[in-house]
Amino acid sequence: MASMQPYSIGVDLGGTNLRAAAIDLEGKVLCKLAGHTNLREGRDAVIHDIVTNIRALRDQFGQAELTGVGVAVPGFIELEKGYIVGSNNLPQFDEFPLRDDISQKLGKPVILENDANAAAMGEKWLGAGRDVRDLVLLTLGTGIGGGIIVNGRILHGYVGMAGELGHMTVIPDGNPCGCGNAGCLEKHASATAIAAMARLLQLGENLKSVEVFEIAQGEGENAARAKRIFESMGTALGIAIGNLVNIFNAPLYLLSGGPLPAWDLFAPAMFREVEKRSFTYRNSKTRIEKATLGNEAGLFGAAYLPFQEAGH
Amino acid sequence: MASMQPYSIGVDLGGTNLRAAAIDLEGKVLCKLAGHTNLREGRDAVIHDIVTNIRALRDQFGQAELTGVGVAVPGFIELEKGYIVGSNNLPQFDEFPLRDDISQKLGKPVILENDANAAAMGEKWLGAGRDVRDLVLLTLGTGIGGGIIVNGRILHGYVGMAGELGHMTVIPDGNPCGCGNAGCLEKHASATAIAAMARLLQLGENLKSVEVFEIAQGEGENAARAKRIFESMGTALGIAIGNLVNIFNAPLYLLSGGPLPAWDLFAPAMFREVEKRSFTYRNSKTRIEKATLGNEAGLFGAAYLPFQEAGH
Repeated sequence: MASMQPYSIGVDLGGTNLRAAAIDLEGKVLCKLAGHTNLREGRDAVIHDIVTNIRALRDQFGQAELTGVGVAVPGFIELEKGYIVGSNNLPQFDEFPLRDDISQKLGKPVILENDANAAAMGEKWLGAGRDVRDLVLLTLGTGIGGGIIVNGRILHGYVGMAGELGHMTVIPDGNPCGCGNAGCLEKHASATAIAAMARLLQLGENLKSVEVFEIAQGEGENAARAKRIFESMGTALGIAIGNLVNIFNAPLYLLSGGPLPAWDLFAPAMFREVEKRSFTYRNSKTRIEKATLGNEAGLFGAAYLPFQEAGH
Repeated sequence: MASMQPYSIGVDLGGTNLRAAAIDLEGKVLCKLAGHTNLREGRDAVIHDIVTNIRALRDQFGQAELTGVGVAVPGFIELEKGYIVGSNNLPQFDEFPLRDDISQKLGKPVILENDANAAAMGEKWLGAGRDVRDLVLLTLGTGIGGGIIVNGRILHGYVGMAGELGHMTVIPDGNPCGCGNAGCLEKHASATAIAAMARLLQLGENLKSVEVFEIAQGEGENAARAKRIFESMGTALGIAIGNLVNIFNAPLYLLSGGPLPAWDLFAPAMFREVEKRSFTYRNSKTRIEKATLGNEAGLFGAAYLPFQEAGH
């Protein structure tokens, strides 16, 4: 059954999950396909799955009405070349011309975008950022990703590497980072950093941030320790966000990811730091909030990009 | 004698100097007027001087050909209201409707802009940034100002307070700042910070940064101490610029101001920190350079803004 109105196909290629959706101009999901990212069978199998999903959606909703295809991926994107560099989650795709390969197989232009950038655009289009033109999103996960929207568009920088907010220095002599730096935000405020602090405080091995949160909700010494973890994490977040407020003076800063349920434990420290460190924050109506689209944000953002390019 | 081509009038209103220039579309200075900012006689006297200068230039080069007037001022600008807030150098102008007042007296729209933003635009138009669309400028003076150009335009933020780069936190428990924060970049890397470190190391009272530089060029214990001041300053700058590279992935970061002659003393520490703290810097051709227009940058940038608004 062919749709009579324009739609776009968004793909979110993660290290674990592969999702694709046909979405119309109002953000209505016409159809969503979700599966596993088949990394064990290799890169070609994953690309085959992506293309098969897109074709299935296109066949269902019409070739003529398809505005375009957007694909969100983890890692840096070399914009001009259209490939991923330095992705820990998709090493097989490193420097592979993913955009052009998919595009060739479909006979249709494809937009490749970093997943945090796509998520920021998704929040801008349909989520917490619907009423603003500028926002900054931090995705708290294994690492910390960043997406910056300026005047309604993703800030890419000149080779596409802007928004690496997880590698902002928050503590000059802090924890060492794989990037070569010390004190990167993601080494003090990501889900992984929470797990590492839990281990340092002998709360357990390989805990998820939500499990540390559960311990913090209990009583006694362990709960007190777990609370201090979120205070430390909130402090690091606050230093980074204070800087971002001073730099961008955006009306909205968003957080998403696994540690969000612990908001009430980390947010007080975060707000305290931002208040202290940003005159701009204290003198303007800057909001720091939870993102609202959860892990759908990247999928929506990927779908929106072809609409934006087409001038819709 | 009337010019036959469009020109613009830029004004740079500082705490000490008041300058105005008529500049054509190619950046040629048709005429420049320079004088003292007459703060002792009060705000109205200063505004009278500004308007008199603009009228003199307009009478000389023609009313019809005047594209517009841009005025650069220190301090935050409330963009919508068109006035200055929180300027240490021009307290009498705080919350005074400067833009509309000048505009009314001239019968012509006026663009009010922060001086560091204007300087960044000047460098983009005619200085070190002529070949790029994105750049970040740090002006090292009493404090540290910042100007950010994205896609050829000043990044303002939603009330006009973007680019407060002097108040980025570089050392979370560093020197206290008048803004309420501790460890602000400008408390560790401005000309004032250099003078404060010189005092702490008993090199002298109220030294200018260039005098500390002269001591560093000498020999013996005092020279060694003075060198360490610039290393400390370069380290703080490098932490901040590393963050800015990670955030913006701009091709060009510029420094201007009094401490620039000491470049060879502070730049090695600065580059070392940026290298360490930015994967993006190590993997792209990011340039960190001296600005080239000196203290004319703000005047040129102020003159450029009406051209940009007119679509030239």
